[in-house]
Amino acid sequence: MAAPHYALASGTARVTGSRLITLLTDFGLDDPYVGVLKAVLLRDCPTGRIVDLSHAVAPYDRLSAAFWIDRACAWFPAGTVHVVVVDPGVGSARRAVAIAAHDQVFIGPDNGVLTGIFTRDARAEARQIIPSALGLPLPSRTFHGRDVFAPVAARLAEGSLAFEEVGDLVASLCEAVLPAVVEHADTWTGQVVTVDRFGNALTNLPQPQTTAAFEVRVVGRKLSVVGTYAERAVGEIFAVFGSFGTLELAMREGHAASALGVVQGTPVVLCPTA
Amino acid sequence: MAAPHYALASGTARVTGSRLITLLTDFGLDDPYVGVLKAVLLRDCPTGRIVDLSHAVAPYDRLSAAFWIDRACAWFPAGTVHVVVVDPGVGSARRAVAIAAHDQVFIGPDNGVLTGIFTRDARAEARQIIPSALGLPLPSRTFHGRDVFAPVAARLAEGSLAFEEVGDLVASLCEAVLPAVVEHADTWTGQVVTVDRFGNALTNLPQPQTTAAFEVRVVGRKLSVVGTYAERAVGEIFAVFGSFGTLELAMREGHAASALGVVQGTPVVLCPTA
Amino acid sequence: MAAPHYALASGTARVTGSRLITLLTDFGLDDPYVGVLKAVLLRDCPTGRIVDLSHAVAPYDRLSAAFWIDRACAWFPAGTVHVVVVDPGVGSARRAVAIAAHDQVFIGPDNGVLTGIFTRDARAEARQIIPSALGLPLPSRTFHGRDVFAPVAARLAEGSLAFEEVGDLVASLCEAVLPAVVEHADTWTGQVVTVDRFGNALTNLPQPQTTAAFEVRVVGRKLSVVGTYAERAVGEIFAVFGSFGTLELAMREGHAASALGVVQGTPVVLCPTA
Repeated sequence: MAAPHYALASGTARVTGSRLITLLTDFGLDDPYVGVLKAVLLRDCPTGRIVDLSHAVAPYDRLSAAFWIDRACAWFPAGTVHVVVVDPGVGSARRAVAIAAHDQVFIGPDNGVLTGIFTRDARAEARQIIPSALGLPLPSRTFHGRDVFAPVAARLAEGSLAFEEVGDLVASLCEAVLPAVVEHADTWTGQVVTVDRFGNALTNLPQPQTTAAFEVRVVGRKLSVVGTYAERAVGEIFAVFGSFGTLELAMREGHAASALGVVQGTPVVLCPTA
Repeated sequence: MAAPHYALASGTARVTGSRLITLLTDFGLDDPYVGVLKAVLLRDCPTGRIVDLSHAVAPYDRLSAAFWIDRACAWFPAGTVHVVVVDPGVGSARRAVAIAAHDQVFIGPDNGVLTGIFTRDARAEARQIIPSALGLPLPSRTFHGRDVFAPVAARLAEGSLAFEEVGDLVASLCEAVLPAVVEHADTWTGQVVTVDRFGNALTNLPQPQTTAAFEVRVVGRKLSVVGTYAERAVGEIFAVFGSFGTLELAMREGHAASALGVVQGTPVVLCPTA
Repeated sequence: MAAPHYALASGTARVTGSRLITLLTDFGLDDPYVGVLKAVLLRDCPTGRIVDLSHAVAPYDRLSAAFWIDRACAWFPAGTVHVVVVDPGVGSARRAVAIAAHDQVFIGPDNGVLTGIFTRDARAEARQIIPSALGLPLPSRTFHGRDVFAPVAARLAEGSLAFEEVGDLVASLCEAVLPAVVEHADTWTGQVVTVDRFGNALTNLPQPQTTAAFEVRVVGRKLSVVGTYAERAVGEIFAVFGSFGTLELAMREGHAASALGVVQGTPVVLCPTA
């Protein structure tokens, strides 16, 4: 049986300036932090187009950020520059990096969020960002999104900075925060990685490349895997391979995570139907 | 006495490519669903301009969505393409439709949200969207916003798809979810259709075309109709014809809906002052 | 010892059309109010670029709005047009104004939110907006953001209206809502002006221009002033001069405001280390 795999395209590490910039942060939208980050992006890349992936990552929740950048980037064109800032270590010695992978660029702290993106593309390159080496003003010690990541992203999107000029190559990154799926005897064990607005509990379990039938074991319960929400009655709980390619625990017009009592990190097992 | 009416312009069902695209969904902004939808829009319409109407419609709340698209579209220029996705039936047999009405285009599931838009313009046309007939990849079964509605919206905004090419004409749509106002003996009975951030309870009762004086009856109380919030003292509850043309129950610097105990569906009666 | 000061550049009161427009409101993102405001902006300035500073100012919280526009505008290029609408007095006799200051334009009600912006630039000019004098339709009495402030902002950004044409000069504005810092015997007394998403309590106390060491007194506690969050252990409470130049009370990976029990208005004292 083929091992499950993610569907991200792997391509050349060279990118072109698409001027499309995405943002994925835990800044929230309550305060003007995102707006000021955009001020810097548009100052340095006046024709850039900015897409908010999310600013509602729970504060310091690196796992959800790692999952979502991994899943969402596949929908963006080559050359897109992604800025990912969930950074409890801002101001510490953690490195700032830019990664060319999957024909796109990913910028953020080297804290495990972007490691999966890097390791999954054999031709990926990571480079360390040293603000002073790029002629950037001395950054504040608390807002590197604005002072480091945004200026570099804007220059790459604008084309005024080539990826090779970002800084020295980095051979390896921090350990990935997105856990690997464990395979054992036709059974895959993953976990809940994030819960979405609708209460769907999204897991890191990709769809097996097989026609065999599967079921799901979670918190002592057995759930069947269905094709779509509409196949089930309102209030029923089930599993479904969601629109981003991984298994989700869902409840028709209800909040599956609350109903099941699962949270980020809850183990989820995908196994052949008994 | 003239019947109350909505102020939407009715025009030709033909539209031109304004490249302005609006989004009204229940996706929330916590997860990257909206960002990925925008990735598809900008991939297929690179010069498109996207305006978020709201992504905070309560999950599956078709009535609020129907009210707001009805009220908000009047402020957008001819040719605007509106994508409205509040879709508890995603993956079921419900149709996907594009509607040309009021010189604009409205795209979403045929589940009653867009029916009022369609029926109020005598020259409106609705066409069924069949993804495969348009050469779109097989959509996921859970995210038609990304896989069906966004590609069609982008092609229409870009001008690479003419409205006549979307699909076959549809003669009628599902029953409207936005209830009609009932007139009886100079008295109009409507209901609360949504509650806004400030606690204003917005109703479907439009302003009568008359100079007669009115008052409002709701949950056993009588409220007077004033011209603006500032006419009343802080904490006072009253009714006002709001900035979108329908009656609102409001409280000066307070939360009227909570104070009155009204929710979506609560009957509201507008009658001549006794 | 030099008095503390804000770092905003002061420049000519004349502005040029950058077509960059920012929005800072208490409208929230739940309802389509912001989307409709953008419809008007793009109708009247089709090539305008809009940046949301925040729409999550607490309803009627003029102090937070005054603080944030004061702090955020420094990051935007000359010619940016800022629309600031926190307006409990909409529909009353309060004036609508446009202010040219710091090489930018600020538009909103004259209710104290923009007064600090105005008074801190000796060359600033304020002009009263009379909608009818500008040929604008009679505004609604409840949504001046859409009907008054957005059309004027769009025309200024588009360049179809010169700042001198906005209306008559206004000599003085309402009293500022952002309180001044009080200096007494090398000690500065300010207050918490807003609490951000991370629980940081932001104050109006700017960084003293001195190399002396300081400490902070708040709610009977003494806090040390550190350089960055990462210097402290998780759960520790401290003070830091934040990325917008004023003192913040912070807790490493925790909610400082809740832990300390401080709210908007709580006095905060900055004094030399004993």
